[in-house]
Amino acid sequence: MYRFALQYPGMHTLPPTVTQAIEALSALPGIGSRSAERLVFSLLQNRSGLDRRIAQSIGQLREKVTECERCANLSEGPLCMVCQNPGRDGRTLCIVESPLDILALERTHEYKGLYHVLHGVISPLRKIRPEDIRLALLWERIQKEPDIQEIVLATSAGSEGEATALYIMEHLKSTFSGRVTRIARGIPTGGDLDYLDAGTLTRAMADRQPFA
Amino acid sequence: MYRFALQYPGMHTLPPTVTQAIEALSALPGIGSRSAERLVFSLLQNRSGLDRRIAQSIGQLREKVTECERCANLSEGPLCMVCQNPGRDGRTLCIVESPLDILALERTHEYKGLYHVLHGVISPLRKIRPEDIRLALLWERIQKEPDIQEIVLATSAGSEGEATALYIMEHLKSTFSGRVTRIARGIPTGGDLDYLDAGTLTRAMADRQPFA
Repeated sequence: MYRFALQYPGMHTLPPTVTQAIEALSALPGIGSRSAERLVFSLLQNRSGLDRRIAQSIGQLREKVTECERCANLSEGPLCMVCQNPGRDGRTLCIVESPLDILALERTHEYKGLYHVLHGVISPLRKIRPEDIRLALLWERIQKEPDIQEIVLATSAGSEGEATALYIMEHLKSTFSGRVTRIARGIPTGGDLDYLDAGTLTRAMADRQPFA
Repeated sequence: MYRFALQYPGMHTLPPTVTQAIEALSALPGIGSRSAERLVFSLLQNRSGLDRRIAQSIGQLREKVTECERCANLSEGPLCMVCQNPGRDGRTLCIVESPLDILALERTHEYKGLYHVLHGVISPLRKIRPEDIRLALLWERIQKEPDIQEIVLATSAGSEGEATALYIMEHLKSTFSGRVTRIARGIPTGGDLDYLDAGTLTRAMADRQPFA
């Protein structure tokens, strides 16, 4: 890669710690080597301890953060903050692809139920099978929590999200007696849930339709 | 700030380590809270040790990196990599605002001389005085290095960069007997040096003119 190559001007002009930091940051999605250079230089100039805060919080991420035993949201203990909250309505369960989608839905301040995070979608093309996402945990959970009256399928509106919603619906037909709904198609087809604005998501959640 | 507020959805849904990492990254210039969320989630999914590499390199930055005693470029020892390189031509000295400008000029593969980094420009508006940038070091250096035959003023083409070049020129008139040149105005007026492409910079360096 360009940034490792001897042609990279930083290799001949900058100390190794700086080129290592530039190289590491530019490996992040959406950050090129020029942006990484600017970030590193701004960290060198920042005197508020931002460098320590970034180093410490990122260093602890994978060590401390696991998945909630109940809903697979990100968590530091057995249960995540949503599942620990007694104010959430355990009668509604919203199924999402990623913890980022929970953030997007929480921004609407409309939904008060619980979540279940799949950590992906079923995708024959990308070889992601039903057993590769958190579906076994979901089937188990539905048996354990008889309070659930409605399951909202909030996977994204692309073909993979649609197919995953269909797959779940098929399974629920024989195992779940409550309502199964799909987040309304106010969301643009092909769009990723976590990019949308709160207004569109509010509308889409309010207009959810029985999933035929 | 929004990201610290209780309204931030992550405060109620994500573990503290994750919200801390999101908050810290979104304090970087050009990174908003949505981008920071995506970066943190991609770090959680990345299994190549990128999180360790970022945490370690950023954690060591301010501890290990200082300024070169000779040219004020970033360095881990008394002398930076440019000053340590015996292949550089000590007869030409190029004065730049920031170590980022050295990277930009090195991308041209045309300039083989040495550098001097000011770490800023003189700016009455922003209350940056001549003694706030590395000018004392420059005056001292010129006396210590009689080999220098040409000084290229490569501050940016905005009003502050121009004023700084003029200020240096005035001082050099009485203290330096070699040529003083200004990087050619192929660079767009008002543009920052380190944003330019190598082609424009090559042209500008080749066309440098005696500084009247």
